[in-house]
Amino acid sequence: MLEKLKERVWKMNLELPRNNLVAMTSGNVSGRDPEKDLVVIKPSGVPYEEMETEDLVVVDLEGNIVEGDKKPSSDTDSHLYIYRHRQDVRGVVHTHSNYATSFAALGQPLPVCLTAIADEFGGDVPAGPYAPIGGEEIGEAIIENIGSSRAILLKNHGVFTIGDSPESALKAAVMVEDAAKTVHLAMLKGKPERLPEEEAKKAYERYQNRYGQ
Amino acid sequence: MLEKLKERVWKMNLELPRNNLVAMTSGNVSGRDPEKDLVVIKPSGVPYEEMETEDLVVVDLEGNIVEGDKKPSSDTDSHLYIYRHRQDVRGVVHTHSNYATSFAALGQPLPVCLTAIADEFGGDVPAGPYAPIGGEEIGEAIIENIGSSRAILLKNHGVFTIGDSPESALKAAVMVEDAAKTVHLAMLKGKPERLPEEEAKKAYERYQNRYGQ
Amino acid sequence: MLEKLKERVWKMNLELPRNNLVAMTSGNVSGRDPEKDLVVIKPSGVPYEEMETEDLVVVDLEGNIVEGDKKPSSDTDSHLYIYRHRQDVRGVVHTHSNYATSFAALGQPLPVCLTAIADEFGGDVPAGPYAPIGGEEIGEAIIENIGSSRAILLKNHGVFTIGDSPESALKAAVMVEDAAKTVHLAMLKGKPERLPEEEAKKAYERYQNRYGQ
Amino acid sequence: MLEKLKERVWKMNLELPRNNLVAMTSGNVSGRDPEKDLVVIKPSGVPYEEMETEDLVVVDLEGNIVEGDKKPSSDTDSHLYIYRHRQDVRGVVHTHSNYATSFAALGQPLPVCLTAIADEFGGDVPAGPYAPIGGEEIGEAIIENIGSSRAILLKNHGVFTIGDSPESALKAAVMVEDAAKTVHLAMLKGKPERLPEEEAKKAYERYQNRYGQ
Repeated sequence: MLEKLKERVWKMNLELPRNNLVAMTSGNVSGRDPEKDLVVIKPSGVPYEEMETEDLVVVDLEGNIVEGDKKPSSDTDSHLYIYRHRQDVRGVVHTHSNYATSFAALGQPLPVCLTAIADEFGGDVPAGPYAPIGGEEIGEAIIENIGSSRAILLKNHGVFTIGDSPESALKAAVMVEDAAKTVHLAMLKGKPERLPEEEAKKAYERYQNRYGQ
Repeated sequence: MLEKLKERVWKMNLELPRNNLVAMTSGNVSGRDPEKDLVVIKPSGVPYEEMETEDLVVVDLEGNIVEGDKKPSSDTDSHLYIYRHRQDVRGVVHTHSNYATSFAALGQPLPVCLTAIADEFGGDVPAGPYAPIGGEEIGEAIIENIGSSRAILLKNHGVFTIGDSPESALKAAVMVEDAAKTVHLAMLKGKPERLPEEEAKKAYERYQNRYGQ
Repeated sequence: MLEKLKERVWKMNLELPRNNLVAMTSGNVSGRDPEKDLVVIKPSGVPYEEMETEDLVVVDLEGNIVEGDKKPSSDTDSHLYIYRHRQDVRGVVHTHSNYATSFAALGQPLPVCLTAIADEFGGDVPAGPYAPIGGEEIGEAIIENIGSSRAILLKNHGVFTIGDSPESALKAAVMVEDAAKTVHLAMLKGKPERLPEEEAKKAYERYQNRYGQ
Repeated sequence: MLEKLKERVWKMNLELPRNNLVAMTSGNVSGRDPEKDLVVIKPSGVPYEEMETEDLVVVDLEGNIVEGDKKPSSDTDSHLYIYRHRQDVRGVVHTHSNYATSFAALGQPLPVCLTAIADEFGGDVPAGPYAPIGGEEIGEAIIENIGSSRAILLKNHGVFTIGDSPESALKAAVMVEDAAKTVHLAMLKGKPERLPEEEAKKAYERYQNRYGQ
């Protein structure tokens, strides 16, 4: 009965290599079914090009496997921590995309110095602390530091993005990498000025409510 | 009756991802029919790979929708401002391509230190001020600052290019990104010297009049 | 009788251009059959897209050609030196992938400042000295300096990776380039902190033993 | 009767976009028939993907069109100057590939600090002065400064490579860009040491005579 969500989460996992956000199997996407409170997530270490929809794993919010023969992503407990603490979140993406992770490596936020950052994130993309992989510590670090943003840069590690669907979390992962690349390049040539807070908020409001069909 | 222009504008929009100038839906192309003074433009937020020619929107120079079921690009008013103030312009392209936008972020022009810049742009690619998205302020900033160039770098935002056709505006968008990449790389290793103004003008004259078939 | 290993080594050689690790023919993969102590290796200077499985060369550990009409890779003696001195190694990859080689050029190790480096390599990726191509000097430099890592950066030259299979050596070659890119970008903006040694060891242990299916 | 050479020059022109060495139509390849002393060259401004073998132009060494309906490349006179002054040259490639051109922009040679540079070029890749496009001044600048190298970096402009065939000139164009990228990245993190001249010469001798089939 989760077939449709599985299909969507599978597609969004395939978008990771298609958008050059991952090397080998270094990223994952999950999605939540809000009615059953079940989560569909990538299986651990399975290459994107070999993964089929039936390889995806369905878990409940405590991490019990409800469906699937494979071991779920080693980031599952952190995804679930986010879903338990943020009812609005229905999609989570994790990558080590290079430019965004270069800010993450340093524990530096991505300053809102481009309209593209204001549109998608409404302000700076925050940095969060280092937390070990495998448990829910990463989930905790995200919940404590992501605030109202859709992306966070975890020190010495990489990027997590959230959204009201797997698709919007994926979009945030693409946009944070693209913006991080531009800001990185600008920082090598000068000191990009941040947009005034009010201007960033107006841009965000417009983009979220009036952009698109 | 605008079917041919729609087809051309559609194709040029598809050139944006093909030339790695955009992330998700972050760029748009429009074209003007000089006889009817109508403009064909990308629909807002529609992914390039899903967009069909009938999704393109036809507007008059005041922004009234003449044909099409979709909402036009949120940059439409600025495209139209350009078309109203520059009779010679029949194509406009907007992107956030990374290297050119890294100059834009800082409000820095791209200096004419390569023959490729002289050939295509005849001199420096100018920078323009920040202007909010959604109205015609961006159009005003472009008209005031683009001078005789085919491209402009808007502070904290991105790139706009113009041409006597959608195809030539697209070419300018490709060339400004390519040149910006090379100049960026050179600036990290030294101080590229500008071509003498006269030399740049001669190169431009030659390229515009004797290059090609 | 080595048909299966040839097929695998052939596939891994094709992964080199697919993962943008090589220009023209500038990389090679070999694999060892542990029962016969024979090695399958890329033929010298043959373009990846023209190479067929029967072009691969089978040599014994002293470099005598056992099967194949082509001349083996000019790095063969160094591959063999590694196989003779490390019974655990069953796959060797050599590339000049740009970001990792930029560390190699300088004789700089890649510091373990990302979880991705800890997971795959367990600590810093070591640097090794310059050694001339063609003999077994490169093999010696690798054996003396690679320690417990799966990758090494040879001064003024490039990258070698090893693994318990051609596939795992290939994975190490992909991951070292990806991590080198991120660390390079971070180093241009600040000073990435290394993970504490204990933390890196725990990450490595987890990734090697609990990641994947 | 030049059909075979046309086919080869056509293929090598298509290698330019395939190896990401050009934007739009910003590069060209030519080849010489040594018996007839005729040169086959790309037509001016024709997109690679639309170009067919019959679009290639055949000229004699003075630039008279012998075959073909199209206008030849605007770099034709400089290609011909090279062919007239270097009997050993049977292929010429011109690109603005980004990393190599970033050295060219500054008039900086590419130092022989990688085995890949020694193998392919035998020493530093020299820089040459700025010269205007369209006449044979660029050819003169190349002949005066290229020495025994296969590539040269022309100030404020781009890259020219030569070879004993269109294929080897193309290979030099790919290798100079790849090496320039690695050296650029290394220069941002430190000061890459040059290989001793003798070591570079030995590497070159080995690669030219013993590498490949």
